[in-house]
Amino acid sequence: MLATVIHAARDIRLEEAPDPRLSGTGRDAIVRVVAACICGSDLWPYRGVVDTDEPHRIGHEFVGVVEQVGDAVTRVRRGDFVIAPFYDCDMTCAHCQNGVSPSCQNGNWWGRDDRDGHLADGAQGEFVRVPTADGSLTVVPGPVDDAMVPHLLALSDVMGTGWHAAVSAGVSPGSTAVVVGDGAVGLCGVIAARQLGAARIIAMSRHADRQALARAFGATAVVAERGDDGIAAIMALTDGVGADAVLECVGTAESMDQAIRAARPGGRVGYVGVPHGGAELPIRSLFSRNVGVAGGIAPVRNYVDALLPLVLDGTIQPGRVFDREVPLADVAEGYRLMDEREAIKVLLRP
Amino acid sequence: MLATVIHAARDIRLEEAPDPRLSGTGRDAIVRVVAACICGSDLWPYRGVVDTDEPHRIGHEFVGVVEQVGDAVTRVRRGDFVIAPFYDCDMTCAHCQNGVSPSCQNGNWWGRDDRDGHLADGAQGEFVRVPTADGSLTVVPGPVDDAMVPHLLALSDVMGTGWHAAVSAGVSPGSTAVVVGDGAVGLCGVIAARQLGAARIIAMSRHADRQALARAFGATAVVAERGDDGIAAIMALTDGVGADAVLECVGTAESMDQAIRAARPGGRVGYVGVPHGGAELPIRSLFSRNVGVAGGIAPVRNYVDALLPLVLDGTIQPGRVFDREVPLADVAEGYRLMDEREAIKVLLRP
Repeated sequence: MLATVIHAARDIRLEEAPDPRLSGTGRDAIVRVVAACICGSDLWPYRGVVDTDEPHRIGHEFVGVVEQVGDAVTRVRRGDFVIAPFYDCDMTCAHCQNGVSPSCQNGNWWGRDDRDGHLADGAQGEFVRVPTADGSLTVVPGPVDDAMVPHLLALSDVMGTGWHAAVSAGVSPGSTAVVVGDGAVGLCGVIAARQLGAARIIAMSRHADRQALARAFGATAVVAERGDDGIAAIMALTDGVGADAVLECVGTAESMDQAIRAARPGGRVGYVGVPHGGAELPIRSLFSRNVGVAGGIAPVRNYVDALLPLVLDGTIQPGRVFDREVPLADVAEGYRLMDEREAIKVLLRP
Repeated sequence: MLATVIHAARDIRLEEAPDPRLSGTGRDAIVRVVAACICGSDLWPYRGVVDTDEPHRIGHEFVGVVEQVGDAVTRVRRGDFVIAPFYDCDMTCAHCQNGVSPSCQNGNWWGRDDRDGHLADGAQGEFVRVPTADGSLTVVPGPVDDAMVPHLLALSDVMGTGWHAAVSAGVSPGSTAVVVGDGAVGLCGVIAARQLGAARIIAMSRHADRQALARAFGATAVVAERGDDGIAAIMALTDGVGADAVLECVGTAESMDQAIRAARPGGRVGYVGVPHGGAELPIRSLFSRNVGVAGGIAPVRNYVDALLPLVLDGTIQPGRVFDREVPLADVAEGYRLMDEREAIKVLLRP
């Protein structure tokens, strides 16, 4: 099959790779990828911010059709259209049961060896072996309309991650929410804040196309400024009080600083941007203003059961964050589009 | 009147001070102190960890009887027995209404000048002028039995602060809670965790008397070890999962590290120990395990309405943390008892 391999910074190649086969554990499945995508976090190695010591498979978001299942698999059948989370998990261990499936005691990441020593393929390829099919995969009922594919694919990562930001920030009915970051996750955070009942949603964005999508998703105001000017704008919009809930969807020290300062005393920051840069959380300013910080690697598998019905009935359309679609053969061009911000998020079709 | 003044590290003196008088704002009250106490945070300047640049009044926890009120005061009357929070607040501004009265837009701290430039006395003295009487003071109904005084005094700070740790940590019915710190606040945190329905409460304590009080307050287990051994003990008690909620009631880098490591993935740390030492919060380990951190300066004034009935009907007895009582004349000895851990918490009687 063909699969994407990152060799070094800005060196993305589609290469021949071994067709995945069932490992013999009985728990796995082979999924033919219908759609995959490129994540903002894939840009860290692409840009060389994270080192690539040796070539490895990449990609962690996909939907597809089940081709084969192991003997012990019971919830998933050949021919099912399935959504995979951006990690493998069993959904039966204590952490999965506690709602934190990325901490699964038997979990794994795509593109790495699973607990039995077999490769779990990266997702930017034609097929993926899913080590724990009954845990990881969510079956989409009925025939799947092609127009629905982007929205389903968003449940693999960005929609659930935006949801986690909103839940972690404690967005509640009638609250005022600020969303820091206008990437796909931040935009999905706007959707989430709306669904969770926020009365006011302030999106921080400097790009016209993203501002427009944020408003379409439910943002009631947009702030283009950053730094002190950005905080001044937030305060002007909130009678000098600050926001009840702030969604931090970037992961830099600057964005976290914006988020913390945008929160009112007693407010909460929900953060899902993978932390980059050396800054830790400033305990004294958090303490003095009673600003809480929660979040982390989003448990999208735990959220999908609640979000899938909202996608299927059209209540939310998170797939609109995919503003470019390219064939898998052009995956390197997809990375370039994302890197140069010519696309919010690129969908790949094998 | 007589009032306590700190001159330098380990130099605590009871001195003659001007009798407080109504300031003319109309909003203030003069309260005769019935009982005050020494706080763990008073030990920071006492020990020289915080510099004392010039002599100043000290103490921030008291209950007493109202002697005079300003013309505009409506909720409090001469002769009322009142509880003061450890700060002055108006309870009408946006932050107070949001439940975060320590961030009151018109607030103040005891022993400092208020917003009109008049001194708000420190609480370790015979009288205190309360700048915003209607906001700060809670009237205790009916005649007050002397045996009730310590429990009421605890509502001035430590009980509400322990409550804030538990609320911030998200203690919920059936949850497993760990309490880091066996000072008065930590012990009140045990009371709070019990009241909020925790099924298991693990107190981390090395002192037999405090362990006994923690058990009396509802702790179901005690861990005496610290560091890696302490975490191993917590994990052994929680099937290797960790705690749902951790109350951090000390404020050192070591205690916060214990708290974060004691939490399960997806768990929450509620912290109320005033941060000391240079350490910030380690964002990567919080992120990777989805451990949230919330808390800060406890809004005890916001909690007192819920806690006072529990004290008055005997459901909770937080005043048991006062294991020594000394006359105000011996305030310096009171500090020594606290500093040398001969007392958990010292009650002062003018």
